[in-house]
Amino acid sequence: MKVNDPVLLAEVTAAFEEYERALMADDLPAMDALFHAAPTTNRFGVGEVLWGIEAIREFRKGRGGSPQRRLGHVAIAVYGDAFATADAEFFREGSDRRGRQSQSWIKFANGWKVVSAHVSLEGATS
Amino acid sequence: MKVNDPVLLAEVTAAFEEYERALMADDLPAMDALFHAAPTTNRFGVGEVLWGIEAIREFRKGRGGSPQRRLGHVAIAVYGDAFATADAEFFREGSDRRGRQSQSWIKFANGWKVVSAHVSLEGATS
Repeated sequence: MKVNDPVLLAEVTAAFEEYERALMADDLPAMDALFHAAPTTNRFGVGEVLWGIEAIREFRKGRGGSPQRRLGHVAIAVYGDAFATADAEFFREGSDRRGRQSQSWIKFANGWKVVSAHVSLEGATS
Repeated sequence: MKVNDPVLLAEVTAAFEEYERALMADDLPAMDALFHAAPTTNRFGVGEVLWGIEAIREFRKGRGGSPQRRLGHVAIAVYGDAFATADAEFFREGSDRRGRQSQSWIKFANGWKVVSAHVSLEGATS
């Protein structure tokens, strides 16, 4: 299986960066456009478990925006011609705990979409 | 793109269950065999950030086994012929916080392997 085709890697990186921009701006339509609209799309946030795109949409509407953050190390890998993972660390203003974000991206006919996302803060062990 | 081909879904489900068995038994060779051996494979644990398979192996060797847990809701989805996500919640003995586990699986020539994993506990918001 080919890993990290450069054209696809550039596409996914652009989608990843657009999602980050949309998240920081609380741009709900842009965020929604980058998630696969299906009941199989799930998102685990720092404080919530969301099964399916409808639960994700409801959460975003009521959230009032994400805490601001800056990204640390970002590792994006493309497998074959239609799948990618994006693993990133981030740092929130006012928090000394490292954040971690994982996304699984699929290239559908309408472009790259997140099908699974997981966000958490490091170090809560009990 | 075909979603949830039943043969592939059964394969990934079996691999997911084998990983859970290996994790609970601290069966290091079995866990290692189910992770893609590459520097692009990453794992975010509850208390650690591991970039690449070598960091994952070092962590497992020094860990002394995972806390015991039972799985809650598990959602596995297969996209196309070689990619799957497995999103699960879990409950640890002695903890009242819900755990969440996300895995990205790729079907390589040597079988289904995890290329990205993220484990966290819900509710740490600061």
